[in-house]
Amino acid sequence: MRAIMFLTVTFVLSVVSVAAGAQTDKVRAAIEATNRKFEAAWAKKDAAAAAALYTEDALAMPPNGPVAKGAQAILDMWTAALPTVPGPIRLITLETSTHGDVAHEVGTYVIWGADGKIVENGKFVVLWKNEGGQWKLHRDIWNSDMPPAK
Amino acid sequence: MRAIMFLTVTFVLSVVSVAAGAQTDKVRAAIEATNRKFEAAWAKKDAAAAAALYTEDALAMPPNGPVAKGAQAILDMWTAALPTVPGPIRLITLETSTHGDVAHEVGTYVIWGADGKIVENGKFVVLWKNEGGQWKLHRDIWNSDMPPAK
Repeated sequence: MRAIMFLTVTFVLSVVSVAAGAQTDKVRAAIEATNRKFEAAWAKKDAAAAAALYTEDALAMPPNGPVAKGAQAILDMWTAALPTVPGPIRLITLETSTHGDVAHEVGTYVIWGADGKIVENGKFVVLWKNEGGQWKLHRDIWNSDMPPAK
Repeated sequence: MRAIMFLTVTFVLSVVSVAAGAQTDKVRAAIEATNRKFEAAWAKKDAAAAAALYTEDALAMPPNGPVAKGAQAILDMWTAALPTVPGPIRLITLETSTHGDVAHEVGTYVIWGADGKIVENGKFVVLWKNEGGQWKLHRDIWNSDMPPAK
Protein backbone atom coordinates (compact mmCIF):
# COMPACT_ATOMS: atom_id res chain seq x y z
CA MET A 1 0.00 0.00 0.00
CA ARG A 2 2.76 2.41 0.93
CA ALA A 3 4.68 1.43 -2.23
CA ILE A 4 1.58 2.03 -4.35
CA MET A 5 1.06 5.45 -2.80
CA PHE A 6 4.71 6.35 -3.33
CA LEU A 7 4.65 5.20 -6.97
CA THR A 8 1.36 6.99 -7.56
CA VAL A 9 2.61 10.24 -6.08
CA THR A 10 5.86 9.97 -8.09
CA PHE A 11 3.86 9.29 -11.23
CA VAL A 12 1.49 12.21 -10.60
CA LEU A 13 4.39 14.60 -9.96
CA SER A 14 6.21 13.40 -13.11
CA VAL A 15 3.15 13.97 -15.25
CA VAL A 16 2.65 17.42 -13.68
CA SER A 17 6.32 18.27 -14.34
CA VAL A 18 6.36 17.13 -18.00
CA ALA A 19 3.01 18.83 -18.58
CA ALA A 20 4.41 22.08 -17.11
CA GLY A 21 7.30 22.18 -19.63
CA ALA A 22 5.04 21.60 -22.61
CA GLN A 23 2.54 24.11 -21.19
CA THR A 24 5.19 26.85 -20.92
CA ASP A 25 6.02 26.56 -24.64
CA LYS A 26 2.32 26.69 -25.55
CA VAL A 27 1.70 29.62 -23.22
CA ARG A 28 4.68 31.55 -24.59
CA ALA A 29 3.33 31.00 -28.12
CA ALA A 30 -0.12 32.25 -27.01
CA ILE A 31 1.45 35.31 -25.34
CA GLU A 32 3.53 36.13 -28.41
CA ALA A 33 0.47 35.71 -30.66
CA THR A 34 -1.45 38.14 -28.44
CA ASN A 35 1.44 40.60 -28.63
CA ARG A 36 1.14 40.49 -32.43
CA LYS A 37 -2.57 41.39 -31.98
CA PHE A 38 -1.58 44.29 -29.72
CA GLU A 39 0.90 45.57 -32.32
CA ALA A 40 -1.81 45.35 -34.99
CA ALA A 41 -4.31 47.22 -32.79
CA TRP A 42 -1.66 49.91 -32.15
CA ALA A 43 -0.92 50.22 -35.89
CA LYS A 44 -4.64 50.71 -36.62
CA LYS A 45 -5.08 52.96 -33.54
CA ASP A 46 -7.87 50.55 -32.57
CA ALA A 47 -8.30 51.09 -28.81
CA ALA A 48 -11.15 48.56 -28.52
CA ALA A 49 -9.01 45.81 -30.07
CA ALA A 50 -6.11 46.65 -27.72
CA ALA A 51 -8.36 46.79 -24.62
CA ALA A 52 -9.98 43.45 -25.52
CA LEU A 53 -6.63 41.73 -24.86
CA TYR A 54 -6.86 42.55 -21.12
CA THR A 55 -8.81 40.77 -18.37
CA GLU A 56 -12.00 42.39 -17.03
CA ASP A 57 -10.21 43.45 -13.81
CA ALA A 58 -6.79 44.15 -15.31
CA LEU A 59 -4.46 46.92 -14.15
CA ALA A 60 -2.52 48.90 -16.77
CA MET A 61 0.27 51.00 -15.27
CA PRO A 62 1.52 53.64 -17.72
CA PRO A 63 4.51 55.86 -16.95
CA ASN A 64 3.65 59.40 -15.81
CA GLY A 65 -0.01 58.64 -15.27
CA PRO A 66 -2.36 56.92 -12.86
CA VAL A 67 -3.13 53.20 -12.87
CA ALA A 68 -5.98 52.28 -15.24
CA LYS A 69 -8.17 49.88 -13.23
CA GLY A 70 -10.42 47.52 -15.15
CA ALA A 71 -11.62 47.10 -18.73
CA GLN A 72 -13.37 50.49 -19.11
CA ALA A 73 -10.45 52.52 -17.72
CA ILE A 74 -8.02 50.61 -19.95
CA LEU A 75 -10.21 51.26 -22.99
CA ASP A 76 -10.29 54.96 -22.04
CA MET A 77 -6.50 54.96 -21.63
CA TRP A 78 -5.82 53.49 -25.08
CA THR A 79 -8.55 55.66 -26.63
CA ALA A 80 -6.64 58.70 -25.34
CA ALA A 81 -3.14 57.38 -26.08
CA LEU A 82 -3.33 55.68 -29.48
CA PRO A 83 -4.18 58.80 -31.56
CA THR A 84 -0.89 60.33 -30.32
CA VAL A 85 1.47 57.45 -31.22
CA PRO A 86 3.97 58.36 -33.95
CA GLY A 87 4.32 54.98 -35.68
CA PRO A 88 4.41 51.22 -35.13
CA ILE A 89 5.37 49.37 -31.95
CA ARG A 90 7.18 46.06 -31.63
CA LEU A 91 7.02 43.97 -28.45
CA ILE A 92 9.98 41.62 -27.92
CA THR A 93 9.41 38.78 -25.42
CA LEU A 94 12.61 38.05 -23.47
CA GLU A 95 11.27 35.47 -21.01
CA THR A 96 8.06 33.85 -19.87
CA SER A 97 7.26 31.58 -16.95
CA THR A 98 3.98 29.74 -16.49
CA HIS A 99 2.36 28.72 -13.22
CA GLY A 100 -1.03 27.12 -13.82
CA ASP A 101 -3.42 29.82 -15.02
CA VAL A 102 -0.95 32.68 -14.52
CA ALA A 103 2.23 33.51 -16.39
CA HIS A 104 4.73 36.33 -16.36
CA GLU A 105 6.54 37.91 -19.26
CA VAL A 106 9.52 40.27 -19.34
CA GLY A 107 10.20 42.09 -22.59
CA THR A 108 11.36 45.18 -24.38
CA TYR A 109 9.59 47.41 -26.87
CA VAL A 110 10.54 49.70 -29.72
CA ILE A 111 8.40 52.50 -31.20
CA TRP A 112 9.17 53.97 -34.60
CA GLY A 113 8.27 57.39 -35.97
CA ALA A 114 6.54 58.04 -39.27
CA ASP A 115 9.98 58.49 -40.87
CA GLY A 116 11.04 54.96 -39.87
CA LYS A 117 13.47 56.11 -37.16
CA ILE A 118 13.25 54.74 -33.61
CA VAL A 119 11.62 57.34 -31.35
CA GLU A 120 11.40 55.30 -28.16
CA ASN A 121 12.49 52.04 -26.62
CA GLY A 122 11.76 50.61 -23.21
CA LYS A 123 10.90 47.52 -21.19
CA PHE A 124 7.83 45.90 -19.66
CA VAL A 125 6.59 43.22 -17.30
CA VAL A 126 3.20 41.61 -17.89
CA LEU A 127 1.38 39.19 -15.62
CA TRP A 128 -0.89 37.13 -17.83
CA LYS A 129 -4.01 35.26 -16.75
CA ASN A 130 -5.83 32.44 -18.48
CA GLU A 131 -9.50 33.42 -18.61
CA GLY A 132 -11.75 30.82 -20.22
CA GLY A 133 -8.90 29.39 -22.29
CA GLN A 134 -7.62 32.80 -23.45
CA TRP A 135 -4.36 34.25 -22.13
CA LYS A 136 -4.98 37.91 -21.34
CA LEU A 137 -2.93 40.78 -19.93
CA HIS A 138 -3.79 41.05 -16.24
CA ARG A 139 -1.08 43.35 -14.85
CA ASP A 140 0.82 45.48 -17.39
CA ILE A 141 3.63 47.89 -16.51
CA TRP A 142 6.27 49.51 -18.69
CA ASN A 143 8.69 52.41 -18.86
CA SER A 144 11.02 54.08 -21.34
CA ASP A 145 14.80 53.66 -21.51
CA MET A 146 15.07 57.24 -22.75
CA PRO A 147 15.54 60.44 -20.76
CA PRO A 148 12.26 62.30 -20.06
CA ALA A 149 11.07 64.51 -22.94
CA LYS A 150 12.04 68.12 -22.29
CA MET B 1 -6.31 -0.09 -7.37
CA ARG B 2 -8.02 2.58 -9.41
CA ALA B 3 -9.87 3.78 -6.31
CA ILE B 4 -6.62 3.96 -4.35
CA MET B 5 -4.97 5.98 -7.11
CA PHE B 6 -7.93 8.34 -7.27
CA LEU B 7 -7.99 8.83 -3.50
CA THR B 8 -4.22 9.30 -3.43
CA VAL B 9 -4.27 11.86 -6.21
CA THR B 10 -7.16 13.71 -4.56
CA PHE B 11 -5.31 13.67 -1.24
CA VAL B 12 -2.06 14.92 -2.84
CA LEU B 13 -3.86 17.73 -4.64
CA SER B 14 -5.74 18.75 -1.44
CA VAL B 15 -2.50 18.93 0.53
CA VAL B 16 -0.85 20.94 -2.24
CA SER B 17 -3.85 23.31 -2.32
CA VAL B 18 -4.04 23.91 1.46
CA ALA B 19 -0.25 24.29 1.63
CA ALA B 20 -0.40 26.90 -1.15
CA GLY B 21 -2.80 29.13 0.82
CA ALA B 22 -0.68 29.06 3.97
CA GLN B 23 2.45 29.59 1.89
CA THR B 24 1.02 32.72 0.23
CA ASP B 25 0.49 34.39 3.64
CA LYS B 26 4.01 33.50 4.75
CA VAL B 27 5.48 34.67 1.45
CA ARG B 28 3.59 37.96 1.60
CA ALA B 29 4.95 38.53 5.11
CA ALA B 30 8.49 37.78 3.87
CA ILE B 31 8.04 40.17 0.92
CA GLU B 32 6.71 42.95 3.16
CA ALA B 33 9.59 42.42 5.63
CA THR B 34 12.07 42.73 2.75
CA ASN B 35 10.35 45.92 1.61
CA ARG B 36 10.94 47.36 5.08
CA LYS B 37 14.65 46.51 4.62
CA PHE B 38 14.62 48.28 1.26
CA GLU B 39 13.05 51.38 2.83
CA ALA B 40 15.72 51.34 5.57
CA ALA B 41 18.53 50.97 2.99
CA TRP B 42 17.04 53.90 1.02
CA ALA B 43 16.80 56.05 4.18
CA LYS B 44 20.49 55.37 4.95
CA LYS B 45 21.45 55.72 1.26
CA ASP B 46 23.03 52.28 1.67
CA ALA B 47 23.29 50.92 -1.89
CA ALA B 48 24.94 47.66 -0.80
CA ALA B 49 22.07 46.88 1.58
CA ALA B 50 19.51 47.64 -1.15
CA ALA B 51 21.35 45.58 -3.79
CA ALA B 52 21.67 42.62 -1.40
CA LEU B 53 17.88 42.20 -1.54
CA TYR B 54 18.05 41.17 -5.24
CA THR B 55 18.94 37.78 -6.76
CA GLU B 56 22.38 37.33 -8.37
CA ASP B 57 20.84 37.47 -11.88
CA ALA B 58 18.08 39.99 -11.15
CA LEU B 59 16.87 42.64 -13.58
CA ALA B 60 16.07 46.13 -12.26
CA MET B 61 14.14 48.24 -14.75
CA PRO B 62 14.20 51.93 -13.81
CA PRO B 63 12.23 54.55 -15.73
CA ASN B 64 14.24 56.64 -18.19
CA GLY B 65 17.29 54.41 -18.04
CA PRO B 66 18.60 51.06 -19.26
CA VAL B 67 17.90 47.73 -17.56
CA ALA B 68 20.39 46.93 -14.78
CA LYS B 69 21.32 43.27 -15.35
CA GLY B 70 22.69 41.32 -12.42
CA ALA B 71 23.95 42.07 -8.92
CA GLN B 72 26.88 44.34 -9.86
CA ALA B 73 24.83 46.50 -12.26
CA ILE B 74 22.06 46.80 -9.65
CA LEU B 75 24.61 47.84 -7.01
CA ASP B 76 25.98 50.43 -9.45
CA MET B 77 22.46 51.68 -10.16
CA TRP B 78 21.57 52.21 -6.49
CA THR B 79 25.05 53.64 -5.79
CA ALA B 80 24.33 56.29 -8.44
CA ALA B 81 20.67 56.85 -7.52
CA LEU B 82 20.51 56.86 -3.72
CA PRO B 83 22.65 60.00 -3.13
CA THR B 84 20.08 61.95 -5.20
CA VAL B 85 16.91 60.86 -3.35
CA PRO B 86 15.20 63.73 -1.51
CA GLY B 87 13.74 61.84 1.47
CA PRO B 88 12.20 58.55 2.58
CA ILE B 89 10.32 56.03 0.44
CA ARG B 90 7.38 53.86 1.43
CA LEU B 91 6.45 50.71 -0.51
CA ILE B 92 2.79 49.68 -0.24
CA THR B 93 2.02 46.06 -1.19
CA LEU B 94 -1.37 45.82 -2.93
CA GLU B 95 -1.33 42.14 -3.90
CA THR B 96 0.91 39.10 -3.95
CA SER B 97 0.54 35.70 -5.54
CA THR B 98 2.82 32.75 -4.85
CA HIS B 99 3.63 29.87 -7.20
CA GLY B 100 6.22 27.56 -5.66
CA ASP B 101 9.54 29.39 -5.54
CA VAL B 102 8.31 32.44 -7.44
CA ALA B 103 5.85 35.14 -6.41
CA HIS B 104 4.61 38.37 -7.86
CA GLU B 105 3.79 41.62 -6.12
CA VAL B 106 1.94 44.70 -7.30
CA GLY B 107 2.29 47.85 -5.24
CA THR B 108 2.56 51.58 -5.07
CA TYR B 109 5.25 53.82 -3.64
CA VAL B 110 5.48 57.29 -2.16
CA ILE B 111 8.65 59.41 -1.85
CA TRP B 112 8.80 62.38 0.50
CA GLY B 113 11.04 65.43 0.31
CA ALA B 114 13.20 66.76 3.16
CA ASP B 115 10.33 69.10 4.07
CA GLY B 116 7.93 66.18 4.60
CA LYS B 117 5.88 66.87 1.46
CA ILE B 118 5.24 64.12 -1.10
CA VAL B 119 7.53 64.67 -4.10
CA GLU B 120 6.66 61.53 -6.06
CA ASN B 121 4.29 58.61 -6.13
CA GLY B 122 4.10 55.68 -8.50
CA LYS B 123 3.56 51.95 -8.90
CA PHE B 124 5.64 48.80 -9.30
CA VAL B 125 5.57 45.12 -10.15
CA VAL B 126 8.14 42.78 -8.63
CA LEU B 127 8.69 39.13 -9.46
CA TRP B 128 10.22 37.55 -6.38
CA LYS B 129 12.29 34.37 -6.26
CA ASN B 130 13.07 32.11 -3.34
CA GLU B 131 16.83 31.60 -3.31
CA GLY B 132 18.08 29.32 -0.54
CA GLY B 133 15.08 30.12 1.67
CA GLN B 134 15.29 33.89 1.13
CA TRP B 135 12.72 35.73 -0.97
CA LYS B 136 14.60 38.16 -3.20
CA LEU B 137 13.66 40.68 -5.88
CA HIS B 138 14.23 38.98 -9.25
CA ARG B 139 12.48 41.28 -11.71
CA ASP B 140 11.75 44.85 -10.54
CA ILE B 141 9.99 47.51 -12.62
CA TRP B 142 8.37 50.77 -11.60
CA ASN B 143 7.23 54.13 -12.90
CA SER B 144 5.94 57.44 -11.62
CA ASP B 145 2.32 58.60 -11.62
CA MET B 146 3.53 62.18 -12.07
CA PRO B 147 4.12 64.10 -15.29
CA PRO B 148 7.78 64.08 -16.44
CA ALA B 149 9.98 66.68 -14.69
CA LYS B 150 10.40 69.75 -16.91
